[in-house]
Amino acid sequence: MVLPHAAVETPVFMPVGTQATVKAIPQHLLEELGAQIILGNTYHLYLRPGHELIRKLGGLHRFMSWPRAMLTDSGGFQVFSLSDLRKVTEDGVQFRSHLDGSSHFFSPEHSIDVQIALGADILMAFDECTEYPADYARARKSLDLTLRWAQRSKDHFEAHQQERPWPDAFAGQTQSLFGIVQGGMFPDLRREAAERLVEMDFPGYAIGGLSVGEPRALTREIIEATLPLLPADKPRYVMGVGYPEEIVEYAAMGVDMMDCVLPTRAARHGLLFTSEGRLNIKNRRFAEDQGPLDPECRCMVCARYSRAYLRHLFVTQELLGAVLNTLHNLAFYLDTMESVRDAIELGVLPALLARVRVRNTDAAARQL
Amino acid sequence: MVLPHAAVETPVFMPVGTQATVKAIPQHLLEELGAQIILGNTYHLYLRPGHELIRKLGGLHRFMSWPRAMLTDSGGFQVFSLSDLRKVTEDGVQFRSHLDGSSHFFSPEHSIDVQIALGADILMAFDECTEYPADYARARKSLDLTLRWAQRSKDHFEAHQQERPWPDAFAGQTQSLFGIVQGGMFPDLRREAAERLVEMDFPGYAIGGLSVGEPRALTREIIEATLPLLPADKPRYVMGVGYPEEIVEYAAMGVDMMDCVLPTRAARHGLLFTSEGRLNIKNRRFAEDQGPLDPECRCMVCARYSRAYLRHLFVTQELLGAVLNTLHNLAFYLDTMESVRDAIELGVLPALLARVRVRNTDAAARQL
Repeated sequence: MVLPHAAVETPVFMPVGTQATVKAIPQHLLEELGAQIILGNTYHLYLRPGHELIRKLGGLHRFMSWPRAMLTDSGGFQVFSLSDLRKVTEDGVQFRSHLDGSSHFFSPEHSIDVQIALGADILMAFDECTEYPADYARARKSLDLTLRWAQRSKDHFEAHQQERPWPDAFAGQTQSLFGIVQGGMFPDLRREAAERLVEMDFPGYAIGGLSVGEPRALTREIIEATLPLLPADKPRYVMGVGYPEEIVEYAAMGVDMMDCVLPTRAARHGLLFTSEGRLNIKNRRFAEDQGPLDPECRCMVCARYSRAYLRHLFVTQELLGAVLNTLHNLAFYLDTMESVRDAIELGVLPALLARVRVRNTDAAARQL
Repeated sequence: MVLPHAAVETPVFMPVGTQATVKAIPQHLLEELGAQIILGNTYHLYLRPGHELIRKLGGLHRFMSWPRAMLTDSGGFQVFSLSDLRKVTEDGVQFRSHLDGSSHFFSPEHSIDVQIALGADILMAFDECTEYPADYARARKSLDLTLRWAQRSKDHFEAHQQERPWPDAFAGQTQSLFGIVQGGMFPDLRREAAERLVEMDFPGYAIGGLSVGEPRALTREIIEATLPLLPADKPRYVMGVGYPEEIVEYAAMGVDMMDCVLPTRAARHGLLFTSEGRLNIKNRRFAEDQGPLDPECRCMVCARYSRAYLRHLFVTQELLGAVLNTLHNLAFYLDTMESVRDAIELGVLPALLARVRVRNTDAAARQL
């Protein structure tokens, strides 16, 4: 996937950098970890420091000193999950800031304006993330709104894309706007959404509205039903997933891009992902454990620090605990995805998948 | 200064690593910053994770993966400043933990036992840090206790130093125990303390009981009065100082070692030290400032990030703000001390001092 700021090898996992930072991690360490593309949150950046300020300072890449690729979401998900007193109309969403209660309005046009100002390589259409559970009538209505908003997002983007904060760089390359498939947990609505979006002709497509509380088998079912309806020669992005074993499965199914707060958020709560399964570092059994977090991991944390030390940092609530735990979890996710890319290139993906599945069964057994 | 784990070039500034971490900074970045020796706090490490655990895991160096030199304080200062309900007797101090109110007792012997278990290169004698203000009678009485505790610390150290957690490493080199000069703000008591400690013959000497609330001119006066009474061929360490301009002045006076929480603690509160003076990064005037924190600084933060970005991280309370601010402040302190060492070697220390003084006058004028 060739983007203005960088070429990205897929399938790729995108660390989440909500407020212009992947929490706790300096950008040069993100680069060392091999992060190719990170995600910024439009809702948060619109509130602080404000998209006009970021535009004025040359865009989000320059503001946070991130030279590689970047994607912004539409703000829709956060408007629905974080803000109070939101009111959805055909035109857009009126909502109150989770920070100070101030009143704001996001329409597809405004979301696109904000995203153009932020200047990420990839923008997302403004959508309504259908809640779970939602009955058929509700999912139908929500989807129709999302599809109308997708067309408005696209129209507005095409009319204003030249306003990006890096107009002359990258040999005229511009931002790309992806469409988002909604439709709740109903395969026929997902099919309709995919077909209508493909007709609109986006340069990439996302499957949204997953990881909203539904059982994981259902997540997989919806991805399986929807993915083949999206063109395989364009990037296919599943938003907000998942656990390490899931991202391998989804990548094997043909998903090109995934993002999730799980590795970073779990790290700050002491939940760490390893080749031996998950572990909670605050557990007393690690108090004297001189081994690395993950004996198979080659990250800078596993190379240098013991479980006993990481437990101490967590128990004493030291900032370094959040830094090191996040570094490891991100390394685990990014290395996992790299091994998928290697396996695809070598034609041994089925073997990798089998190994991951056995490992998960073993880990589950150990945790019994 | 040749220590078991490393040779240390003096004068040296020692970052404070209270709980087995210099807050927010991974050890490999501390190494990149050029930190030669860091300080661990006996009181905190005794409470968590406990000195016996650290001994069992091979000592503090190994526990936190810090291969260079390390110094532990005696725990005395924290017992007096952090804990409640402390009761001082000839034997030692009974106190309650600031964490859970549990009752503990530190004697000179126990402090030394804990420090031997931690295994730092340099240990400090257990002292009473005389409060400020203290009248002559009180300072006299406190000093006498500190001197008796110094002898007991030394006797106990000599009897037990072989119990260090790295017995066979470093060609038989052992830990060093430094004495601490107290005596309040009374030069004659400071003189007596220095003479009595020199008679006891320690391999290094510290001036303690400063930066406890006294005016800075008085701090300097006490250092000036005491320093010449300590042998110049042994390390002379002033505890708990100071601002960047002060550490240059003290180094020029002949102080070999200093430590202070100021660069790390101030960083977490957004107070940053630069060649142009201090700045508070939360100030609105930095909101659109694309320049580096300090145009003269060559640190990894100034090379990559703008004041506008650092302000955003601070305002949004992002962990990365604490990380980057701390990196810069430590770099500023360590680079300042390196420039002192270079100036000494080149015989141009007076010129450096003059430059620092002019800079401070200018900075003070700008802040009017």
